[in-house]
Amino acid sequence: MRSKGFDGMVCSIAGVMSAIGDRWGMIILRDLVCGLSRYEDFRKSSGVTNATLSDRLKHLEANGLIERRRYQANPERFEYLLTQKGRQIAPLMPVLAQIGDRLNVSGTSAPPMKVVNRKTGAEVRWSFIDQKTGEQVSPSDLKILEGPGANDLVRWRLSHRDTGTTMPKAIMAASNSG
Amino acid sequence: MRSKGFDGMVCSIAGVMSAIGDRWGMIILRDLVCGLSRYEDFRKSSGVTNATLSDRLKHLEANGLIERRRYQANPERFEYLLTQKGRQIAPLMPVLAQIGDRLNVSGTSAPPMKVVNRKTGAEVRWSFIDQKTGEQVSPSDLKILEGPGANDLVRWRLSHRDTGTTMPKAIMAASNSG
Repeated sequence: MRSKGFDGMVCSIAGVMSAIGDRWGMIILRDLVCGLSRYEDFRKSSGVTNATLSDRLKHLEANGLIERRRYQANPERFEYLLTQKGRQIAPLMPVLAQIGDRLNVSGTSAPPMKVVNRKTGAEVRWSFIDQKTGEQVSPSDLKILEGPGANDLVRWRLSHRDTGTTMPKAIMAASNSG
Repeated sequence: MRSKGFDGMVCSIAGVMSAIGDRWGMIILRDLVCGLSRYEDFRKSSGVTNATLSDRLKHLEANGLIERRRYQANPERFEYLLTQKGRQIAPLMPVLAQIGDRLNVSGTSAPPMKVVNRKTGAEVRWSFIDQKTGEQVSPSDLKILEGPGANDLVRWRLSHRDTGTTMPKAIMAASNSG
């Protein structure tokens, strides 16, 4: 399942996905964000098999996203917590949830979860923000450029925008318009 | 690799991840967003094997995220384009990229790509927005509640927040503070 090539990519998207591992890793992160921390609760929450759960917990721990902590001595029992690195990936969960809500892929006709501002109680949605004006930006107005860490492959990849699907066309459906 | 249990989850996060398939599916979506559309270009861009690429393209097509279109008749040649559903998932790419940039998981010390507002040229970052005040919300102020589509399992999952890792604690590291 793991490809060496994947881990060698110069790409932050690949780096995050590699650290998470796969969609089971993502589901464990979802459960941690929802408040779960114990092995049996992860099992119950997702129906994941023991083999898959053990493997993905080890993967997340090896990649520094979670840590294992003993919460009971006799018999020994452990819980799993997000590390600082894991907490930086955690905000991805509401983003994924809201994208899925709009696509109606939850398996139900209404959002299973909602995110609110705990200070105001108001609903919270994610959006792109222009860092100069502070205004929200429609995904259709985004443009991807090479960054300071681009290598030849990144430059080559981005050089196709005029002939292929451009970023503006690709993300015409605004994340924050529904 | 595919588990039946996964697809039956009442969860928008699981739904999106299921549609994408795995991290190779995500990398193909990244390449489409960057402007690639042809099989050989996907191969070159990521170093993915033929077997994996063919499988993931079929998966993305079966899940309605991409469509195959003939661009040359003799010999027949096809390109792959994002569907409307795929375009709604596309904004996830800059989000993932920016999370990865902050975690420095790109394999380089600087961001390989940057996202700008094509109208102003200013850098664009994603953020959470309070839907009543229009103000940005720190991830540490977010709270996950059950939505109208919650079932018993979702309610049970969210009932652990007082004993386990709460959402506010879980995402203390703001997505938009760095």
